[in-house]
Amino acid sequence: MGPLDELAKYFQKMPSVGARSAQRLAFFILSQSPAWVNDFTQALQAVKKNVRYCSECHNITLQDPCEICRDQTRDRALLCVVAEPRDSQALEKVGYKGLYHILGGLLSPLDNITPEVLRIEELVRKIRGGAFREVFFALDPTVEGEATIMYISELLKDCAVKLTRLAYGLSTGANIDYADELTLTRAYEGRVAIN
Amino acid sequence: MGPLDELAKYFQKMPSVGARSAQRLAFFILSQSPAWVNDFTQALQAVKKNVRYCSECHNITLQDPCEICRDQTRDRALLCVVAEPRDSQALEKVGYKGLYHILGGLLSPLDNITPEVLRIEELVRKIRGGAFREVFFALDPTVEGEATIMYISELLKDCAVKLTRLAYGLSTGANIDYADELTLTRAYEGRVAIN
Ligand SMILES: [Zn+2]
Ligand SMILES: [Zn+2]
Repeated sequence: MGPLDELAKYFQKMPSVGARSAQRLAFFILSQSPAWVNDFTQALQAVKKNVRYCSECHNITLQDPCEICRDQTRDRALLCVVAEPRDSQALEKVGYKGLYHILGGLLSPLDNITPEVLRIEELVRKIRGGAFREVFFALDPTVEGEATIMYISELLKDCAVKLTRLAYGLSTGANIDYADELTLTRAYEGRVAIN
Repeated sequence: MGPLDELAKYFQKMPSVGARSAQRLAFFILSQSPAWVNDFTQALQAVKKNVRYCSECHNITLQDPCEICRDQTRDRALLCVVAEPRDSQALEKVGYKGLYHILGGLLSPLDNITPEVLRIEELVRKIRGGAFREVFFALDPTVEGEATIMYISELLKDCAVKLTRLAYGLSTGANIDYADELTLTRAYEGRVAIN
């Protein structure tokens, strides 16, 4: 069935969707009303049309700069470094009130994610600008997260800024955006100095 | 983020997509090019626009009646009863060459899937028409599949037609459309008489 197979190919490109699930998803679409499929395609287009990236923190936003970067009531001397926008959403839920910098990933030379691929140079420039009292790393407690923190703190070793990271309430190998709120709250409150 | 959450809600309606995966899928869409998202939405619309149901066998088709129902080279005295279109696709792969009747599900009174919900009356009428030498049930070897075969064969007990079903090469509780081809081939070749 051409159109169903064609549609299944798109689903199969998506994260953790195998050939079988892709086929099931295509059949699911077929079973929905035309109105539902229309609304779904409009939601898809709306994301591409309305969601953009903040030119200051690189988070996702409807307006540039983003709400957080524009918010003068937040602690603008506290900077939180995260890998991806969804990580900042997790931090928002536990009451973090500073600014963010989205790296765009974690160092992983084997996957060709080298320092140049991430927004590290821009981060270092921002920090050297002197506006921050504390830079707080909220990265996954994995080999890649550790390597990223080590690499950036090495670049900043002559800099007076205080560097902190999440406390190890998170188990090694876990993903930040899968952590429950209590675990993440504890890890945030117990964040430890790096330098 | 409104549009992302909105989109995630649609993904969450899909089979075996939880809240977390739905969010990841929404972020995946955001990370794709506008052209990819456009092509994806066109594939979605094409399924709804071009795929219909065959008025004879109720399988999915681009043209009514479907290719199989129109094919005069197939064994038109052999009828295969399946629950869903994807089951007939599995049978096609193992070389089945008769016709199909898609029931639209399996009997499951607890889920309100009663005989009236399925295309059982139409099936019985078709069979009583006398055009078939053999009616072959390719239903999941589950409680629901068994109940469906029992119910239909009871309705046909005064009828001369030969009723068969897949051999038990399939383990109880399995799904037909997940079976590997060899298992399904053996089950088809060893199909057993019911009456
Ligand atoms: Zn921003
Ligand atoms: Zn047909």
